Amino acid sequence: MKIAIVGTGLIGASFAKAARSRGLSSDIVGLDAEAEHAATALRLGLIDRVVDAVPKEAAAVLLAVPVDGIADWVRRLADHPGVLFDAGSVKAPIIESLKARDGALPPRYVPCHPIAGSEGSGPEAADGDLFTGREAVLTPAPETDPEAIDQVRALWRGVGADARLMTAADHDRILAVTSHLPHLLTFAYLDRVEAGHLPHTGGGFDDFTRIGAAAPSLWADILRLNRGPLTEALAAFKDSLGRFERALANGDRAALQALITAAGRRLTRD
Amino acid sequence: MKIAIVGTGLIGASFAKAARSRGLSSDIVGLDAEAEHAATALRLGLIDRVVDAVPKEAAAVLLAVPVDGIADWVRRLADHPGVLFDAGSVKAPIIESLKARDGALPPRYVPCHPIAGSEGSGPEAADGDLFTGREAVLTPAPETDPEAIDQVRALWRGVGADARLMTAADHDRILAVTSHLPHLLTFAYLDRVEAGHLPHTGGGFDDFTRIGAAAPSLWADILRLNRGPLTEALAAFKDSLGRFERALANGDRAALQALITAAGRRLTRD
Repeated sequence: MKIAIVGTGLIGASFAKAARSRGLSSDIVGLDAEAEHAATALRLGLIDRVVDAVPKEAAAVLLAVPVDGIADWVRRLADHPGVLFDAGSVKAPIIESLKARDGALPPRYVPCHPIAGSEGSGPEAADGDLFTGREAVLTPAPETDPEAIDQVRALWRGVGADARLMTAADHDRILAVTSHLPHLLTFAYLDRVEAGHLPHTGGGFDDFTRIGAAAPSLWADILRLNRGPLTEALAAFKDSLGRFERALANGDRAALQALITAAGRRLTRD
Repeated sequence: MKIAIVGTGLIGASFAKAARSRGLSSDIVGLDAEAEHAATALRLGLIDRVVDAVPKEAAAVLLAVPVDGIADWVRRLADHPGVLFDAGSVKAPIIESLKARDGALPPRYVPCHPIAGSEGSGPEAADGDLFTGREAVLTPAPETDPEAIDQVRALWRGVGADARLMTAADHDRILAVTSHLPHLLTFAYLDRVEAGHLPHTGGGFDDFTRIGAAAPSLWADILRLNRGPLTEALAAFKDSLGRFERALANGDRAALQALITAAGRRLTRD
């Protein structure tokens, strides 16, 4: 089975590495707008060949490009005979953009988002276990070919992920809370951190700010594209913050302890 | 050199473990309001003896108790011949409380804060390397005995920390930004996380929320005691958050990218 990887950064290269090591494909081609990325992926043995265009005979095409480039790639490959799937962190705006112009999604395009990442970027950071045990969300439309859904689900399972279907709207609302809001809060927090603060930090600071190093151009698009659900999540956060502020202003130890206790319980998965 | 540890939780027990393994003391006694903590520390070989009161002959006494109990312990041991030092995350309110009642600090009490911690708690979580390479801040008052400062500095260096002097006000302002605000933001964030969100999280969520599991009663006191500097840091954060909100509301990709880029640069230590 020939797989084409469009975008050989962290996600694309990790998928290629996992697909190869798990025996999904022995023929993986890659292309990247940044020629150096594709060349590095080749040199590292993550892909078998660098190509200029997606070959017709690819059975599966992963669009591992930044979110604002996904819709264009889907349009460009609308008639490709293979299954087409992406890895974008925002789903509804991409789908709406395609529907607004073309009336419907190409039936063999399955919108996806593997909830996996790392501090690294580029093919050098490729990790064959990046998707292991992580969730890969599929948000197909009513017009999506069920066979394409099955194929893409099998691909994600093949690289170790838990494939799960959900609506694009649910995905975007959930990710606004679980990923986009934490990034936004960390970015805004870091805006107030000065060089003189850094020597006086502990492990908690390092953990809390780790996502602050995320790629600015990718994240500017993610936050912007999902600004509806993100703005809602932010408003809810500000209400909660207000409760802490009132307890602080009142010096209300009992209220603070109750709020912190309730917060910690949210982390319990059972 | 006999060392007494008042409070054999994570910090006290880690200090005991480090002091022993680095040869600072072969005679470490411990006491704890929670009898089980002290018994566990003894069973684990972290202390040599459980005592009911701080022995007169202890050359150094570490007050590793929650912040709201430190001032009382300092008063109780004001005439103790050894050096007295604490590990509280907030400094000025403790010092002010002592000065308000007693006019001055006991000269052999050195207010301290090792900027170190872990997800664990209690003596079972003791880590002899907890302080290695971490900063131990000393915030002595003008009346503090210089010899006591030297002794306490040597103790922190002895357990691997970088000892550094600073004013209590500077400490509290800095820690409001580097530690207390991140905890507050995480607690308020978690208030909006529902059980249904947890399956859809990645490593970024785990990092961002790790400090949300901090002990509620300790943190209620830390936030409350440092509420002045914390409220200032929070107001500054909200200004920064407002800039992101405006960029989001305007769908201004360039502004978002510039803000995120500037945020990421704050993490660069050079």
